[in-house]
Amino acid sequence: MKIIVDVMSGDNAPLEILRGVEMASELEGLELIITGSEETIRETAEAHGISINKDNISVVGAESVITMEDAPLSVVREKSNSSMAVGLKLLAEGAGDAMVSAGNTGALHAGSTLIVRRIKGVKKSAIATILPYKNPTLLMDSGANIEIAPDVYVQFAQMASLYMERIMGVESPRVGLLNIGAEPTKGTKNVVEAYNLLKETPDINFIGNIEGKELPGGGCDVCVTDGFTGNIVLKLTEGCGSFIMSKIKEIYKKNAVTKMSALMVKNGIKKLKNDFDASEYGGAPLLGLSKPVIKAHGSSDGLAIYNAVRQAMRCVDSNMVYEIAMKLVPNIMEQQNRD
Amino acid sequence: MKIIVDVMSGDNAPLEILRGVEMASELEGLELIITGSEETIRETAEAHGISINKDNISVVGAESVITMEDAPLSVVREKSNSSMAVGLKLLAEGAGDAMVSAGNTGALHAGSTLIVRRIKGVKKSAIATILPYKNPTLLMDSGANIEIAPDVYVQFAQMASLYMERIMGVESPRVGLLNIGAEPTKGTKNVVEAYNLLKETPDINFIGNIEGKELPGGGCDVCVTDGFTGNIVLKLTEGCGSFIMSKIKEIYKKNAVTKMSALMVKNGIKKLKNDFDASEYGGAPLLGLSKPVIKAHGSSDGLAIYNAVRQAMRCVDSNMVYEIAMKLVPNIMEQQNRD
Repeated sequence: MKIIVDVMSGDNAPLEILRGVEMASELEGLELIITGSEETIRETAEAHGISINKDNISVVGAESVITMEDAPLSVVREKSNSSMAVGLKLLAEGAGDAMVSAGNTGALHAGSTLIVRRIKGVKKSAIATILPYKNPTLLMDSGANIEIAPDVYVQFAQMASLYMERIMGVESPRVGLLNIGAEPTKGTKNVVEAYNLLKETPDINFIGNIEGKELPGGGCDVCVTDGFTGNIVLKLTEGCGSFIMSKIKEIYKKNAVTKMSALMVKNGIKKLKNDFDASEYGGAPLLGLSKPVIKAHGSSDGLAIYNAVRQAMRCVDSNMVYEIAMKLVPNIMEQQNRD
Repeated sequence: MKIIVDVMSGDNAPLEILRGVEMASELEGLELIITGSEETIRETAEAHGISINKDNISVVGAESVITMEDAPLSVVREKSNSSMAVGLKLLAEGAGDAMVSAGNTGALHAGSTLIVRRIKGVKKSAIATILPYKNPTLLMDSGANIEIAPDVYVQFAQMASLYMERIMGVESPRVGLLNIGAEPTKGTKNVVEAYNLLKETPDINFIGNIEGKELPGGGCDVCVTDGFTGNIVLKLTEGCGSFIMSKIKEIYKKNAVTKMSALMVKNGIKKLKNDFDASEYGGAPLLGLSKPVIKAHGSSDGLAIYNAVRQAMRCVDSNMVYEIAMKLVPNIMEQQNRD
């Protein structure tokens, strides 16, 4: 299996990405194709004693890097020679089986859609982020598609359900439609129509509307929503996490007794803070594409990249793209099988 | 000044509402008109030693109560004789200067719009909830209007700014437009248009788009958004608060040392939990109406009701309705003054 890794993108690139690649290179049967400036990669690896001169790591040169400030479409325009664009082109051409990048989410989604392309019959691809709630909750869409038609909610529910089942091992994942009340008549016109379509969709475990209040407590396994609302949910979760943590810090700083108390629970609180700082765990799969693409968190360290590579491997192993195509567009698959 | 209080609505009604009324009756120059079943009110007051037989408290009978399950329009239909509907009618007729209710938010908004009515020229009235973020943040709309036109965002920004300035004492409140990025081109078509209108609106301190991540940390004083997104923000904030608190509880319960540690910060943590349990503080004003209506939190106790009454008094004292009318529809006011 061949996994492409964009080693130049992300807050800690290329150092931490290379560390993750080095760890992943120990995995059996795996080949890694890394994209980026060959010089920078070599220098960084040498300076930090990272061994990338291995049989199962190959470097493909790329002249530029997409930053967080670049527009999504820069990946196919002025930065079509970037580490991200080069990686996506390799993926589209079949040089690799899946790709991992910790770079600009908008650019990765735009580039994936335009270069790797969607599964035929899938109306929209989207970013499916796993939120660190009581149970891991897949939020789809978390920012790619601002407004979506009612039937797109259904495809999101189907794709996200398959992902949670096959990759995260959640049996019969509970699908909730993000809304402002439990009743089927609540919400925008599109959301009401989506409710009616979801209710009639076989092979998903639709539990109805889910409200913002129920999400963190584990009210569903898959939360379907448009990219506007989803992005606000994603970022507000992160914002609430760091705000509450700062309030807790204030409580502890009050006096000598509270300061002593802080020492006793330090590790637990630190872990909780980390969970919410990232606002998500694991990489975020881009679902609906003809090849698996994993968006690792921007602040990923080596271990996070290693885990994202393993996540990409599971997507390939489980034949997720084929499964999604079979579920969403069985007629097209039947036709292709006949051809 | 006369404040109407619906004493039958709310999780702790009528007992806690009556307690709040009793406290408020000590305020100088205030008359209270309470609506509800005269028998229940008398019995509850007697059973708990609450003195409501005072010169400045009058009871107006109402046969029914709107529950949380009732549809918003029940207030003008099958439950037009409810404590909420009777109160709103008294307010519309001029028997009182403002009203407080801890009941069903949807019904209170629908009833206010249909019975008390909007200020002439105000396109939509809305629920403005104060969120317990780093600084009190007025979220408008927090659930009344699912979808709104771009010019409605502007009126929301103007009304909410006036409220924060006059009632909450925030000088030149920073107005943020809830969005998924800082750039003016981000968001839905309506949000992009709203951005352009807000930018050109005089007399408000528009600071541009605000993302979910920035809200809890105090990124703005007024957050304008549609009622769908706003309601999800409101409820997700509450959900994140109680989820993180439950995680902290787990950390403390781990062993004897952590349990001891918990004792040292008990009060601070409890206060933080209470702040987030309510998910808001103070009552939520319904802005845009021709008379002030304050929605007290459903779980209000006596003190919360007392505070909501004082909040209603401040709205009357500051002539908020007139100020809103002058700012939003100056031509109409000029015309009325000429008549």
